[in-house]
Amino acid sequence: MNVPSVPPPAGLSFLLGTWAGEGVGEYPTIETFRYGEEIRVWHTGKPFLAYSQRTWALDDGRPLHSEVGYWRATPDGGVELVLAHPTGVVEVQEGEVAGQAVRLRSTSIATTATAKHVVALERDVDVVGEQLRYAVRMAAVGVPLTHHLAATLRRQPE
Amino acid sequence: MNVPSVPPPAGLSFLLGTWAGEGVGEYPTIETFRYGEEIRVWHTGKPFLAYSQRTWALDDGRPLHSEVGYWRATPDGGVELVLAHPTGVVEVQEGEVAGQAVRLRSTSIATTATAKHVVALERDVDVVGEQLRYAVRMAAVGVPLTHHLAATLRRQPE
Repeated sequence: MNVPSVPPPAGLSFLLGTWAGEGVGEYPTIETFRYGEEIRVWHTGKPFLAYSQRTWALDDGRPLHSEVGYWRATPDGGVELVLAHPTGVVEVQEGEVAGQAVRLRSTSIATTATAKHVVALERDVDVVGEQLRYAVRMAAVGVPLTHHLAATLRRQPE
Repeated sequence: MNVPSVPPPAGLSFLLGTWAGEGVGEYPTIETFRYGEEIRVWHTGKPFLAYSQRTWALDDGRPLHSEVGYWRATPDGGVELVLAHPTGVVEVQEGEVAGQAVRLRSTSIATTATAKHVVALERDVDVVGEQLRYAVRMAAVGVPLTHHLAATLRRQPE
């Protein structure tokens, strides 16, 4: 069957691919930790990008965080990111893209009854050449918006 | 590397696998439609289940809806489901599991600025033998909670 396909949003196509690298997590309530990470961004034939991410401990490879969701471009050049986390958190992030730089902040966060209370998240994503860098700031468990994660990943061969 | 792994939640393990089948969608604002569907539920080495779903048109195979997220079991025998939709919607669903029957209702729904307004969703999922059936009721775009989706899928060989 010749399946009809709609192109991915042009303004976000620099995110497409598989990215791998390492990051550092820190927060006032935990010990600073390093992690390995893989990010996948792909096109499903619809006008958005699918996204999944997983991280692992550098010492024994045990799985740490993961998250999944979708990137959307808005008609006025904005960006929307919807995410689900296995920690029982969902996020709506909205923001802008300029060139290959994305600036996002949460406009809604909801959690399950048993989840830790996350209040706000901000994400900066920058792609330069074959390198993707991001930073995440988080307000959660009584701590105001504070730097939480930074990582550098490289685009992997297809 | 011998990667440490935590088992999946025992009370939800009947959902594990790849499921494929067909469904019917209806809603007061749209024409009734039939769709093909694949659901994947898998264990990542952490105490939850990862979930992805995609549907397609039966006539030409074009992609229709998709959604991704995670299933969590709570200590008191409850179920939590967090989902992201490429339509710009995120959901927190909470409910109960009895045997292989899950009853969920949305406790939080959030949408991006450009998304259609979804107010509530309820999901029934029942596994009998190798068959998974679900029904979804939705309140959205001014319509109160109304039957929206029903599908029957079969567990696929590994």
